[in-house]
Amino acid sequence: MIVSTAAIVVIGNEVLSAKVTDENGPFLASELRALGVELRRIETVPDEIPLIVDALKRCLGAAQWVFTSGGIGPTHDDVTIAAVAQAFDREIVADEKTLALLRARHGDKLNPALRRLAEIPRGATLTWDPGPGPSYPVLSLENVVILPGVPSLLREGFLRLRDRFRAQPFYARAVFLSLGEGAIAEHLDAAVARYPTVAIGSYPRFDEADYRVKVTFDGRAEADVTAAAALFCARLPAGAVLRQE
Amino acid sequence: MIVSTAAIVVIGNEVLSAKVTDENGPFLASELRALGVELRRIETVPDEIPLIVDALKRCLGAAQWVFTSGGIGPTHDDVTIAAVAQAFDREIVADEKTLALLRARHGDKLNPALRRLAEIPRGATLTWDPGPGPSYPVLSLENVVILPGVPSLLREGFLRLRDRFRAQPFYARAVFLSLGEGAIAEHLDAAVARYPTVAIGSYPRFDEADYRVKVTFDGRAEADVTAAAALFCARLPAGAVLRQE
Repeated sequence: MIVSTAAIVVIGNEVLSAKVTDENGPFLASELRALGVELRRIETVPDEIPLIVDALKRCLGAAQWVFTSGGIGPTHDDVTIAAVAQAFDREIVADEKTLALLRARHGDKLNPALRRLAEIPRGATLTWDPGPGPSYPVLSLENVVILPGVPSLLREGFLRLRDRFRAQPFYARAVFLSLGEGAIAEHLDAAVARYPTVAIGSYPRFDEADYRVKVTFDGRAEADVTAAAALFCARLPAGAVLRQE
Repeated sequence: MIVSTAAIVVIGNEVLSAKVTDENGPFLASELRALGVELRRIETVPDEIPLIVDALKRCLGAAQWVFTSGGIGPTHDDVTIAAVAQAFDREIVADEKTLALLRARHGDKLNPALRRLAEIPRGATLTWDPGPGPSYPVLSLENVVILPGVPSLLREGFLRLRDRFRAQPFYARAVFLSLGEGAIAEHLDAAVARYPTVAIGSYPRFDEADYRVKVTFDGRAEADVTAAAALFCARLPAGAVLRQE
């Protein structure tokens, strides 16, 4: 089992201009977490090739897997393929299988715009839906996976490839407290110092929740996660821990 | 009226690890759009000072205003103040008014962790809630606004400052079509070429919606937005436009 990291580039003026609330970042974050992949960053950028290329290069330097969301299609604002090709210094070529499918589907209505759906960076891998019926390919190039922006299509496309990302799982514990953050900070520091491989987070609530702070412990070594939570709880005054999960 | 741009840095392991779905990016995107501010990027990064500093510097280079979300508080994972101070090469100092409030609130329970709530980068501006009762200050330093990660607090803090970001408003039109993207791409290209200051987006649907593509036209000059939409619609075959908004 490998320890694995990822980054996401969300491409979409519609997200930045608040026409749409991005569902794809949260979906991928949740899936990657369940697979044991540590998500290191999400960048949401406009439909502009230089900004996408810049984000891709940074994400490639920060993580093993990079997922793009959006910018796939036949119109002027679909520039993700061009950006990925540029990031890897590849030319754009037509994929013959996709072109044959497009010819079968559109016949003499296959115009230059629709032909763009067959464009791939040279050397890209195409993963087809194993089921019957019409399908679109998910493109990947080296460690970049290119997913469509429509949430239902992104989900379906990601699930085709999901198993290849599976890594050593995370173990997680959460402790719910009756104390505020100021009263627990030194005990958190003690746990952080003792268990450096455990990610410890402290999340206060200021609403009507039945607790004041939720403290989370996450790591790949179950024994360390359990021990860090136990060390922290043992340092707290009686009654501070309301419950654990 | 100025033309204004912004970027957002969301700081939070809890978002990247899918413990929480970020509400603050979408809230700020929506508010900024309504104010006429063009959002150029959102970066979601871990609670790690070097990565926050790097994101801040990039965002400062890309936009006039930068908003940070999260990482404010008394615990080990609250590192935003340190990162902003480092990005501007400022030292961290205690704000005396905040410290006096903390002394009044916590008395002899004011420990080193709680004192961290009074830390600011030297030269930061504090904006207090004008209402009665307990309050926290919103910090800003030059063109960076530092907002808390708890959504209710972020919203309230942003609203204190909102009017200073108001810029020339956006005008928007949307056209809903019975045709697919392949059939409209050349007409979009014509409108894009003729009206370069209008942002034109094409958003297909593949579900049970009553249209196949929504095309959006956005810009600061109302006449250009209207003309771009009219040019596009005039090129389409009869019956293609289902409705406009």
